Parts: sequence; C-alpha cells; structure tokens
Amino acid sequence: MSLNSFGHVFRFTTWGESHGPALGAVVDGCPPGLALTEEDIQPWLDRRRPGTSRFTTQRREPDRVRILSGTFEGRTTGTPISLMIENVDARSKDYADVAQAYRPGHADYAYDAKYGLRDPRGGGRSSARETAARVAAGAVARAVIPEVRVRGYLVELGGDPIDRVAFEDAEVDRNPFFCPDAAAATRWAAIVDSARKAGSSVGAVVECVAEDVPAGWGAPIYAKLDAELAAALMSINAVKGVEIGDGFAAARLSGEENGDPMRPGANGRPDFASNHAGGIAGGIATGQPVVVRCALKPTSSILTPMDTVDRQGAATTIATRGRHDPCVAIRAAPVVEAMVALVLADQKMLHRAQCV
Amino acid sequence: MSLNSFGHVFRFTTWGESHGPALGAVVDGCPPGLALTEEDIQPWLDRRRPGTSRFTTQRREPDRVRILSGTFEGRTTGTPISLMIENVDARSKDYADVAQAYRPGHADYAYDAKYGLRDPRGGGRSSARETAARVAAGAVARAVIPEVRVRGYLVELGGDPIDRVAFEDAEVDRNPFFCPDAAAATRWAAIVDSARKAGSSVGAVVECVAEDVPAGWGAPIYAKLDAELAAALMSINAVKGVEIGDGFAAARLSGEENGDPMRPGANGRPDFASNHAGGIAGGIATGQPVVVRCALKPTSSILTPMDTVDRQGAATTIATRGRHDPCVAIRAAPVVEAMVALVLADQKMLHRAQCV
Amino acid sequence: MSLNSFGHVFRFTTWGESHGPALGAVVDGCPPGLALTEEDIQPWLDRRRPGTSRFTTQRREPDRVRILSGTFEGRTTGTPISLMIENVDARSKDYADVAQAYRPGHADYAYDAKYGLRDPRGGGRSSARETAARVAAGAVARAVIPEVRVRGYLVELGGDPIDRVAFEDAEVDRNPFFCPDAAAATRWAAIVDSARKAGSSVGAVVECVAEDVPAGWGAPIYAKLDAELAAALMSINAVKGVEIGDGFAAARLSGEENGDPMRPGANGRPDFASNHAGGIAGGIATGQPVVVRCALKPTSSILTPMDTVDRQGAATTIATRGRHDPCVAIRAAPVVEAMVALVLADQKMLHRAQCV
Amino acid sequence: MSLNSFGHVFRFTTWGESHGPALGAVVDGCPPGLALTEEDIQPWLDRRRPGTSRFTTQRREPDRVRILSGTFEGRTTGTPISLMIENVDARSKDYADVAQAYRPGHADYAYDAKYGLRDPRGGGRSSARETAARVAAGAVARAVIPEVRVRGYLVELGGDPIDRVAFEDAEVDRNPFFCPDAAAATRWAAIVDSARKAGSSVGAVVECVAEDVPAGWGAPIYAKLDAELAAALMSINAVKGVEIGDGFAAARLSGEENGDPMRPGANGRPDFASNHAGGIAGGIATGQPVVVRCALKPTSSILTPMDTVDRQGAATTIATRGRHDPCVAIRAAPVVEAMVALVLADQKMLHRAQCV
Repeated sequence: MSLNSFGHVFRFTTWGESHGPALGAVVDGCPPGLALTEEDIQPWLDRRRPGTSRFTTQRREPDRVRILSGTFEGRTTGTPISLMIENVDARSKDYADVAQAYRPGHADYAYDAKYGLRDPRGGGRSSARETAARVAAGAVARAVIPEVRVRGYLVELGGDPIDRVAFEDAEVDRNPFFCPDAAAATRWAAIVDSARKAGSSVGAVVECVAEDVPAGWGAPIYAKLDAELAAALMSINAVKGVEIGDGFAAARLSGEENGDPMRPGANGRPDFASNHAGGIAGGIATGQPVVVRCALKPTSSILTPMDTVDRQGAATTIATRGRHDPCVAIRAAPVVEAMVALVLADQKMLHRAQCV
Repeated sequence: MSLNSFGHVFRFTTWGESHGPALGAVVDGCPPGLALTEEDIQPWLDRRRPGTSRFTTQRREPDRVRILSGTFEGRTTGTPISLMIENVDARSKDYADVAQAYRPGHADYAYDAKYGLRDPRGGGRSSARETAARVAAGAVARAVIPEVRVRGYLVELGGDPIDRVAFEDAEVDRNPFFCPDAAAATRWAAIVDSARKAGSSVGAVVECVAEDVPAGWGAPIYAKLDAELAAALMSINAVKGVEIGDGFAAARLSGEENGDPMRPGANGRPDFASNHAGGIAGGIATGQPVVVRCALKPTSSILTPMDTVDRQGAATTIATRGRHDPCVAIRAAPVVEAMVALVLADQKMLHRAQCV
Repeated sequence: MSLNSFGHVFRFTTWGESHGPALGAVVDGCPPGLALTEEDIQPWLDRRRPGTSRFTTQRREPDRVRILSGTFEGRTTGTPISLMIENVDARSKDYADVAQAYRPGHADYAYDAKYGLRDPRGGGRSSARETAARVAAGAVARAVIPEVRVRGYLVELGGDPIDRVAFEDAEVDRNPFFCPDAAAATRWAAIVDSARKAGSSVGAVVECVAEDVPAGWGAPIYAKLDAELAAALMSINAVKGVEIGDGFAAARLSGEENGDPMRPGANGRPDFASNHAGGIAGGIATGQPVVVRCALKPTSSILTPMDTVDRQGAATTIATRGRHDPCVAIRAAPVVEAMVALVLADQKMLHRAQCV
Repeated sequence: MSLNSFGHVFRFTTWGESHGPALGAVVDGCPPGLALTEEDIQPWLDRRRPGTSRFTTQRREPDRVRILSGTFEGRTTGTPISLMIENVDARSKDYADVAQAYRPGHADYAYDAKYGLRDPRGGGRSSARETAARVAAGAVARAVIPEVRVRGYLVELGGDPIDRVAFEDAEVDRNPFFCPDAAAATRWAAIVDSARKAGSSVGAVVECVAEDVPAGWGAPIYAKLDAELAAALMSINAVKGVEIGDGFAAARLSGEENGDPMRPGANGRPDFASNHAGGIAGGIATGQPVVVRCALKPTSSILTPMDTVDRQGAATTIATRGRHDPCVAIRAAPVVEAMVALVLADQKMLHRAQCV
C-alpha cells in the first residue's frame, strides 16, 4: 500500500513540499458525471489559505488550484483527477538554521533518522502546507456526498473552551477562528495575539459534525468508520488526540448513561434520545450526526530558543525564524472537514459495492 | 482493500463470530525463520481469557490456539500463518430478545441497517470475542519485533484514575485489572462489583507504552505511525477516543512547554528532556517510548431495561441477559498491546523495505 | 498489500500447506443475504478433487469443506467467510529426497533462495493443493455473479488440440479431461497413460469463457479486467502464458481483420460481428463473452532422474517419488473457472461502487 | 485499492488524458538518497517519444518531464516524486467523428458503457499516450534496481518473426523498430510502410529480458513475480497475450524437456542448463534471466471504414482520421521495459521487507 495515499475505492494521493514548485493531489475512483470545475474547489481552499488575518502565517499564497485531468466539459469522467497548486511565496533562505539543527517537537529529527536526508525548506514534506492538497481533494469528495453536510469549527483554543450554550453555526464564518461562540472568539484573539508577540504558540481542539450520514455506511472490523476517521484526523499535522462522540468522557459514564435510547421515528428510522455514540456503533453509522473531535498541539516553530542538537549530535539551541502560524489549529478546521468528507465519500462507495 | 484485514506488509485478517464454531486469524507476510509454536501464543491469549475472575464475563472459553499453517519444525516459513480458536461455551438461546430488538449503544441496529440481517448470537461479529484473534496475531507480531517491549495497563476505571506516583510495573500482573497502582486496584474492585450487582457497567482508560522503538519507524503522510495506531486502537470494540503522548492535554500547552528539548545522548542519539510527543514526530518514531492511550465506553449489554425499538420499528424495552463483562475495558489491555505490536511489526518491515 | 490475498473489495486470502493439518480461504467483502451453505460449495470442489480417475494423482482427499464463519441460517451476513478443508491423506515420508535436493522446474530451489527454509512435504505451500482453497472461494464468487456463466475446459493436451468444429459443451462433463471434443478426449487418454507409464508428464491449454458479463465491468488502467484476469491465471501453479480473445494470434492480424464491427442489436446494445477482442476493450467488458486461455507446463515432479544440486550446492540427481498428476493441467480447469469468477465478482462490486 | 495505481510498497499512480493540459505520475515509496534528476528520466522518454520516424504517429510532443516533488539537491528524499509532462501538440478537432460513433476494437464503446460519458479527444484516458507516464515512473524504478539490466525489443511484427540466430543486442538501438535482427528490421520497414499507406495497421510481439535479478525476489501466491508481470504487461494498451519463459510452447513439452537441470555454479549458486522457466519458479526468481513476452494487436484507429454504431445505437461507419501509429507496438518496447522495471523495484523492496 502506498503511504501517501488514503482511501479504499475513493482514493487520493498527495505530493509536494512546502518550498517546491507545486503541490497537489490525484483523486482516483471518483464517480463519473459529477459537476466539477476549479470554481467548485477554490472556495474551500480559500477558507484554509494563509495570510488572511494577523492570526495566521503571513506567507502569501494564492493557492489557486488547477484541474489537470479527469474532467471533460465540466463533469468528472471517472478517470483520475489531478489537482495542482503552485507555491509562489517560498522564502527558503530563512531555513539555514533548521537545516543544521532540529526543532524540538518538530519532525526534523525524525525525518533525518528515517531517511538520512531531508528537504529543510519550510519543513519540506512535513509542512502543514501539504494539507492544502487534502482540502482540494476534499472538495471533490463533497461532490460525491451531496446528501451530507460536513461542518468543522474550533471548540477550545489555548485551553479556553467555548460556551456550548452560545453555539451559533453562522458565527463560525464570521470570525477568523472558525469559532461558533462570538465571545470566545474575542477572547481567543487576545490569546493568539499574546502568543504571537511572545514568539510562542498555542494549541486548540477542532470539532467536526457530519449530518445526514445514512445509517449503514462504515464497516467492521478494521475499516470501521470511526477507525478510518481516527486515522484520517491523526494524519493531520499536530493532531495528538481523536475522539468520537463523548470520547474520553464516555469512559466515565455508566452503561445506562452512555446508551442512546431509541424510539420509533419518521420513515421507519428510530429516533435517538441522545448521541453519546457520536453517530457510530460497531464501526457503522447509525443515522445520527457523526461527531469527531481532535486536539492539535501548539506549533513547534517558535521564536523562543530551545535546547537541541545539531545534525552532528552536538548541543546547540534553536529559535525558528521564518513565517509561522502561532496557532496552526485555526487553519486546521477546513482540513478536518476535508478529511471527514474524504472518509465518508470512500465509505459511501464501499457500502454501495457490498450492500446495494 | 479488505475490511477485515489490517496492515501493509505484515498483514492479518480475522474471521469468526461469537457463537460460531471457531474464530481465527491469518497472518500474512511474516518473516521466515522465527521460532513460533502454539506455546508462544497461548500465554498472551490466557491473559485475555474470560472467566478468570468475578470481574469479567463468566463464559468459560479455554481459548486454545492451533497453528494450522505457516510453520515447519517450530519455525515460521514465510507463508501465511493460520491460527484457529474453537468456541466451546456458547449459549445462543440467551439471545432471543437481542434478535428482535436493538440494545442501545450496541451495534445491533447499525448491523441491521447495513446488512439487512445479522447473527444475533452473542453479538455475532461485533462481539469483543473477535479480539481473541487479534491477541493471537499479536503474539506473532511480537516475534517480529523482539527489540521492542510493549506493555498495556489501565490508568482509569469508572472515572477513578491511578496515582502516577504509585505506578509499579510489576503490580500490573498482580491484580485482575491490569492496574499498575495497588491502591487503585482495590478501589476498582469495589467499583466493578457495584456495577455488576446493579446490572450496570463502567468504562475505563487503557494506556500502552512501547519501549525501544527505533527512531525512523513510521512514515508520512497517511501511514503515520500515530495514524496507524489511532486506527488500530479505534478499531477495538468500545474505544471512543485515542491519544498519543500528552494527547488532548497538549492542546493546552504553549509551544515552549510542549516541545521536547534534546541534548547529546549515548551512541550519537539525542536524549530528550521530556516526552510530550509520546515518541512520535511527523508520524515517525523519535526513539523515545511510544505512548498511546484509549478510552473505552461502558459495556452496552446491561441488565437495566432501556427504551428501544424492535426490528419492525415498534417501541419496546430491552434488558440484556446472557453473560457479559461489567467492564469490557479490563480485558482490553492485552488487546491494545496486541494492536500496538501488530502496527509496529508492520512499520518495522515497511521501514526496512524503503530505507535499509 | 497482503501477498496471499487477491481482490479489491471482494477479497480472499488462502492459507495452508500440502501436508499440514488443513488448508482454507477467508472470503471478505461478500454481499449479505446470499444463499450459501456447504452444499453450494462442495460440488465445485468435487470437480477438482484428486483420485477420481487414473489420470490424476492417486492421493485420496475427500476435500470436504466447512464454513466456519460469515453465514447465519444459510445466508451470508456480510462478514468474512472462513472456509476450511482438512488434509487427510498426506504421506510425508515420500519427501525425504525433495527436502535435500531441488526438483528441476519446481519451486523448491526458489523457496529456499527466498526464505532460507521450506516445508518440503508435498511441496508445502507451492503445491497445487492450494488451489482447492481457490475453488472453494470461487464457489462463493459464483453466488455474487448469478448473471454470469463461467465455463472452463481444455483445448489442447500434450500438443494435441481439439477440433473446434467438434466442440460440444455437454461433452466437457462426460470425460475426465474437461474436453469438449469427444474424439480428442479419447486420444488424450492415450497420451496421459503413456506419460504416466513413462514416469513423465505433459502440459495443456485451458480455455475459459464467461458469458453475459455486463458491458462496463472492469476499469482503467492498472485494474483492467484483462490485467486482473492475467494476474489471476498466472498465479495458478504451472501457468506460463495467458491470452485474452485472439491473444498472440491478434499480433498477426491487420487492423481491419482484428476490429470487431458493430451493428444495432437488441435492447439498445450493439451486436458484434466477431469477438477477436475476447469481450474486453480498454480493460472494460464490452458485453461479449469474455474469453481467456492459459498454458500450463508439464508437472515438474517426474520419475525420470534429472541433474540437480542439493541444499549444500553439490551435484546430484533427483527422481520424484510420491503421488503426482501426470498432467496437472487437467484439474486446473475448475481452478481457472474459480479465478475467473473471483475476478468478475470483485469487478462487479467495484463497478457498482463507482458507477451505479 | 486505487485503480490507476500499481505496486505494493514501490507504488506509482498515473493521471492524464491524451489532449488534456498534461499527464503525469506520482511515485510513492521510493528509497531515499538515490541520485535522480530530470536528466536521468528524459532519455527513457525520448526512446518512446512519437514523431521520430515515419513509422510512428506524426504528433510532435517533446515529452519534457518535470520533477515537481520528492527530490532535494539531486537526491530522492523518500517522499512522493511527482512527474509531469505537458501535452503541447493536441489537435482535438480531428475527433468529432469519434465523439459520436465507436471505433471497432477501440475502448470508445466500453468507456461509454461504463461511465456514460468520455473524453473523446485523442482517446482520452484510453490513449497510449498514458504510457509516457509509465516510462517516466520506470526511470525512477531503474534507480532502485541498479543491479538489474532490463532490455526490451520486438521479436515479431506483422506476423514476421526475427531470426534468433541473427540476434544482436546492439542492433536494437540502431533501427526504429527496437529490432535485434537487422534483416528483419529492413523487412519490417516495408510491412509498416505498406500498412500505413493502406490506412491499415499491424501488430507485433515484444520480448523483455531482465538480467541479474537475484534469486528470491517474488512471492507466493497472488503476488507471484510472474503474476505481477502478467498484470503489468496486460495493462499496456493493445496487449492481448503474455508469456513467461517458454510460455505457450511449454504446454507442448514433456516434463523432462521442460525442467531446467541444475549443476553446481559459482558463488554457491546453481548453474542452469536451460531456461524454459524464464527465470521464475513458484512465483519466485531463480537467478536466471527473467524472460517475458507480450503480443500487441494492430492499432484500432485505421483509415479503412468499418461498420459500427453511434452513441444513439444507430448503424453507421467510421474511419479514424487524426494521427496514429500504424504499429503501436513499436513504441511499446520502452513501455514494456518500464513496467518490468517497476515490478522488479517493488518486488525488491517487498523481499527486503520480509526476508532481510
């Protein structure tokens, strides 16, 4: 199996480095006949694009996507869809230090330990810039699952959670934090500003809900819908934890509290009195909203000098110059959405293969 | 890709239902020449075996494993290793209710929604009994990674965490809870007894540490070591959350707090001042201990009647008879260990394929 | 990817050695709700079973199949179907010579070169006995594609081809050679008798036709229907060549001769004036009969002494005792059918995933 | 599994249509540290490039390859290598007829039957132009297996075979037919000229030999080296048959004739007295030259009008304008080489994963 690919029958492969000429994705297995142009993909990339507020990296990338194959007269043909985004604002000279020493918490050392060499410019392949390709692929996935609404947002930043009572869906698009709580967004601005000025960084928690996922998508045992989502989210840069439904809190409930009672609902489907399960049981969707959550650590590239070693193993310190997100998790919301959409598109097709 | 298989080059497939004649695993891609007999596998199965204390299900299964292929004169030959465990104590008559109505929180409804039919006896394929096959396969994986020590234990049960100061590795094998804190184990006995007598159930958190994983195992982007571990653990019955290293707590740290500073260590390898990362950066092992944690919900099969619907969609209530674990998480510790070992064996071989 | 597995979404894994306790297959991804009992599988195994005439090996194996999982009350449940066949007539003592020296043309030397050790009893994993598991899995595949008729037969044996004018479908089941030409069958009996008495062996060519394969099954580029069939057939023991439609003869035609002209047919489908293409164009079924052919070399296990080397590299000679097929290709006809059915079941499901 | 990808651990994905803006390949899993620049890839593309003699299509494509990712300072980094080739000489207006009616023998009808729509310009995805991406990927594969020499050439064209006695390796590069027999090349020029002038086309047989493949590469059962090669070659446009070693001729030999006797050789390896097996036994390389052969049908795009149906199912005739190869098999020799190299690179890495 290829390690830069994801999915079973709806499958995408990403390629590209932070400071190479371009990056992209090849989406394979897409159903034919779907309307798809660059204009259908661009808006999703624009949501993730850097440099749109002072709270994200100041790198200026237009992130314009090109469709190089797989469509004809505005429709998918069923053949692989090649998507390319050119890098236009790379400043590789900032990375001389990083080439010689390892940023604590970053992938620098691990890449060298594995491969014996690495592209240090902007983090190379380990850069969060790779996630632009996922967002482009995710836009194709959305075309495969028009019946599902996938919505991501931040529920905690720098240890400061939103107030669930104040949750307003429309607010997510009104502030630069994908935050559904206006008051929290105001507080978060101060937190990120403070971290940015201190040359530090903060983490956050992203939640994503997929509504109207049909009961039955998913599969036992090793391609469970929750297992696929866990892999998808944990593959995103900086993610260190993943939860489905109540997640870790479920471990503190009793069996009676945790079960989601059913009663007769519309169209012969049950209504559920609660959704502790996050819409998945036995790895298969129940028809309730699918709820996932992931924790992102603070950016490892910070201005504060840290103890480290250089490539020869000698002691040194490193402070990361270059342009970085003080909270990489902010721009992760569209990435989480994309990964959820990609998993669901694949599972829809897998379900159709076996069960329709 | 097969949905009841896991792994890339070291790959296993499990099969079997709770009340079928047998269950098993086929392990494919195992290196040749490794010493392997049934006696090497049985002890790991015995740790997971039901009925060994009053805190687990009273179903009496000897869980004797047979090797049906892939070894010759006590050594692996490189061909597929077929492992079979017979079911000997199934009492299918207990499941008449479950066949007609859906247990809240259980996979019953989701299976019917997907497949249109299911084997209701003991939960069929969705039973935790399937994990016996994983433990058997995991024993083969351990033979592939003799350099690594994989150790799982419970760190929280029913909302009651261990005291990390009291952590004693040897204690894990001395109590029926895989608990490294003797005082916590005593408290947990009362918690589980209480839940059992009340016809209820409790959840728990399992932690697993893999020591001496060589720096370099793992891979970007979609087969990151942490992504594979997340999928592996989330595929275990009842798991609702997975963390690597500090997990969700990392989202509350600053960049300076979260980075693991390095200094020159022995053999040219760095020493790390901390291990917030849980031994993985950029999806690749750093050489530090790999630390994973997963949350298991309380067992859905409880004696307390719950509101639900039957197969025809009519309202009813259900209380689960049959024999069940009041805390399925207890016996999950060996399963988590097995899944971690299986991921690491695969990643070792993948690393060797590309990088040696 | 697992190397003892085959297929994408309808996927099977085989295991077992010639003289181990058993062999089997795990079929994963099967649609739910299909009628399937051991009685549906056994007849196909009986067609391949050894010892039914003097023209095949005299090893007496009942080849009784057991379904260990994946069905409930006579229907598939969508979970993995584990099939097991016990070995009951192994005589391992015949293989002392084979353990020490390499049969020319056989896999003995290659296995040792790869693995450093091997199970020499009956050829171990390289034995044609493994194909029993394929035939069992193929019976499940047939249940997935009831619309298709798959029919295999021999068209040449020992260099003696059938007369196409004398082709009679019903004759295939009347003689021990799966030969559609009664006169050829009579000649072949003499050829095989002669080879058997001389301690020699002969090869043959098997053809297989799949009728009523719907236009559209198959896929570009690396899972072309013909590419999958080629892999499937070339994976059968002793196969050294594969053809689709006219095969090598197509290379001697002109473009006008080779094209299959179309004219309007029934139900809006075209009628084709010929079938040089063997029912596949661009890797996708055209709706015409799918025609494949494969050449099987003569059995390598012969009584005539041959020059060879032993495990230490010293010169020696070897003559294979033990019981062997003088023409292993005879019993390959049901195996070829099974592999064709397995490929088609997988492609039907893949097509449904993407295009329905 | 992705259908436009090939390989297990060394895996490539191709994308692109004949008349789209570009086509390309993403090569994943490549070992790090290998010297690789565009200059290492271009010469292989130049061998396959169209328009270099009057015997191939007159489309003028420079086929310049760009490396967009996966290398740093002239060395592979272990991350995905994205290769892109721009299309510069597409004349889509020639394809109005093809858009409305189906060329007999071509993929036009099958694509429409599968997808309901297709890109008719130059054959879209079904064009042999896709093979340029394979040749680019194949050049990367060659860097992975420097110990192996892969050499492809034509052994028959239009039914006219070479004289094996006249075989001269150096001659292959001296004529436009990749023909190792100078006299045959002269005859073939007349055959192709004649077909071209008549608006017809001819087929051919390509042979490929891989020397110094180490004994042990390959694997049972469904990733046998010969099964992988068969799939690889059958996936090439126009291929209708594949042989390993003696191929179909082996079915006419006796067991004594077909076995390749061994005697003690250098370095503890056996010497083989013959190579009927084509270097593969039991799916595993024996250390002898690996010999494969494939038959390519005549090009389906011919000027001679043929009976066919249009998209509405009505009777019509079609004659293919546009620029086409009168013998597409000529330029297939570099493609066959590339596919053989790609299979071997993958198998080398798989072998290392399991057995070193």
